[in-house]
Amino acid sequence: MRPRPVVVVLEGTHPVRRLERVRELAEVRVVQQEGLVQALDGADVLYLWDFFSGALPAAWHAAGSLRWLHCAAAGVDRLLFPELVASDVVVTNAHGVFDAPMAEYVLAAMLHAAKGFGPLRDQQREATWVWREGRNIAGTRALVVGTGSIGRHTARLLRAVGVRVEGVGRVAAEHDDDFGRVHAAADLARLAGDVDWLVLVAPLTPATENLVDARVIGALPDAAVLINVGRGRLLDERALVSRLRDGTLAGAVLDTFAVEPLPPDNPLWSLPSVLVTPHMASNADSWRDDLAAQFERNFLLWSAGEPLPGVVDKALGYVPSTRH
Amino acid sequence: MRPRPVVVVLEGTHPVRRLERVRELAEVRVVQQEGLVQALDGADVLYLWDFFSGALPAAWHAAGSLRWLHCAAAGVDRLLFPELVASDVVVTNAHGVFDAPMAEYVLAAMLHAAKGFGPLRDQQREATWVWREGRNIAGTRALVVGTGSIGRHTARLLRAVGVRVEGVGRVAAEHDDDFGRVHAAADLARLAGDVDWLVLVAPLTPATENLVDARVIGALPDAAVLINVGRGRLLDERALVSRLRDGTLAGAVLDTFAVEPLPPDNPLWSLPSVLVTPHMASNADSWRDDLAAQFERNFLLWSAGEPLPGVVDKALGYVPSTRH
Repeated sequence: MRPRPVVVVLEGTHPVRRLERVRELAEVRVVQQEGLVQALDGADVLYLWDFFSGALPAAWHAAGSLRWLHCAAAGVDRLLFPELVASDVVVTNAHGVFDAPMAEYVLAAMLHAAKGFGPLRDQQREATWVWREGRNIAGTRALVVGTGSIGRHTARLLRAVGVRVEGVGRVAAEHDDDFGRVHAAADLARLAGDVDWLVLVAPLTPATENLVDARVIGALPDAAVLINVGRGRLLDERALVSRLRDGTLAGAVLDTFAVEPLPPDNPLWSLPSVLVTPHMASNADSWRDDLAAQFERNFLLWSAGEPLPGVVDKALGYVPSTRH
Repeated sequence: MRPRPVVVVLEGTHPVRRLERVRELAEVRVVQQEGLVQALDGADVLYLWDFFSGALPAAWHAAGSLRWLHCAAAGVDRLLFPELVASDVVVTNAHGVFDAPMAEYVLAAMLHAAKGFGPLRDQQREATWVWREGRNIAGTRALVVGTGSIGRHTARLLRAVGVRVEGVGRVAAEHDDDFGRVHAAADLARLAGDVDWLVLVAPLTPATENLVDARVIGALPDAAVLINVGRGRLLDERALVSRLRDGTLAGAVLDTFAVEPLPPDNPLWSLPSVLVTPHMASNADSWRDDLAAQFERNFLLWSAGEPLPGVVDKALGYVPSTRH
């Protein structure tokens, strides 16, 4: 009889769910950070239910038998330390789970800015009735930076409400089912001058860090709004703050920041044309259950020797899209 | 030669636009409120560019030659005084002009509530990072009260983003292209128990006044959100405030109120789960130009003896929908 595989679950604050079927087929070790090194001895699978944990690099020396690591998050930028990248360990992520909530957040962000709900909420606090016009989003132009599954879901949702969408990805494509057209990231500064919405959903990788630099931000039209649900370090925060402070950029809706939680003295908090949200764009309704169900599905595939979905290309730093 | 018709334009604060072609075919008298009585002498057409004006009843004695009245607004509840209703004067309104912005406002309101942007904005003012989950709107159930052109546009937009929509109208319909199903207003209290979003876009008429009474509001599930872009007097504001204050109703997004501007001491201003906006849902982008273009189109049709679009049924109090 083959020995049962060992699955280590790094649990964290929120109790892990739905391990019943995994336990039928594997020895499951649910641990907190401090128990990780010991638990990894002989482990085949590591399941980072605590997707924020930074405990793995220090425990890596004990992970010699590891074959598969599943992270219950979409962005794996903080996870991919050099030893993991160089190893044969297969890394999977929460591919697909966050597509719908992230796309809805982007649409919510657009409509929030278009209708002026931020300033109107501020007026409400003063019980002040000052009429102001909104904008329509139908017919406006959005450029979505990031053509993975979240970007594609976002593009489809925006097109469903009449927004004209194009994409920016690693590789340009003349014809794309979701984006119509995908531009190469190198063209971003040229493209930025012609958008109403610049939407960042890209993963953070060496290729995307500071992709939205001062030149790109400088090229945005005055009426444009920047929406970031990717990672804070995709953009030059200082350049963004500068234009927002000058009043030469209509606004920004930001869910992610170079430093999180956003420090209390960061100027983004107090700019009236900015909406700051606490990294919650992906978190709606049943997201924790969805993550748990995804690992269960993946584990059953892995046990059966089937290919895993959502495998991260560790050199690229994300799950490459299968559609063009 | 037939005499040129006389068109009286009640202008108000905002300069009227786009009368060039009208002037080619008619004698145009642009007046403020105080000049209305005199201008109406011999007038064929009255164009209420100042759609908020309440000046007409007092000037009605001078309107004996009037054949057509166009009001540059959607809701004509304040316009339809008994003498006008009893007269042969044809009344038209801004039918269609506000469909897109109103539908977008409703979607914006839903996403605002679903993502918790109101409380997040309040946190932002305190520079406080407190994570909270959002809700997805895809798959939720909206009941849209009002099946005119704004309600239909709203239904189509909500369905495009995955919301399950049904309608409530004067007359029930088993099959409806936009709503799937339309229920009779008499069933509202029964239906209200089974919705995530109760959306009011109906006109204010004797039949709709207080349609959303304490019984309907009492039947809404705790997680439901009420959105009102119709008229404040469609609902029992006191019953709504009571549930919101108790925390037994998730929230409300309100653009219209029984008394406008909303008085500073109205409790709606300070309820954190409420977004108050200053009757602006219909006002986006080129709405004034669109209103002006609509009157020009209508006037050319009228001059040519063609049927006018957007004719108000003065007994019903709105433009009856042509679709079922």
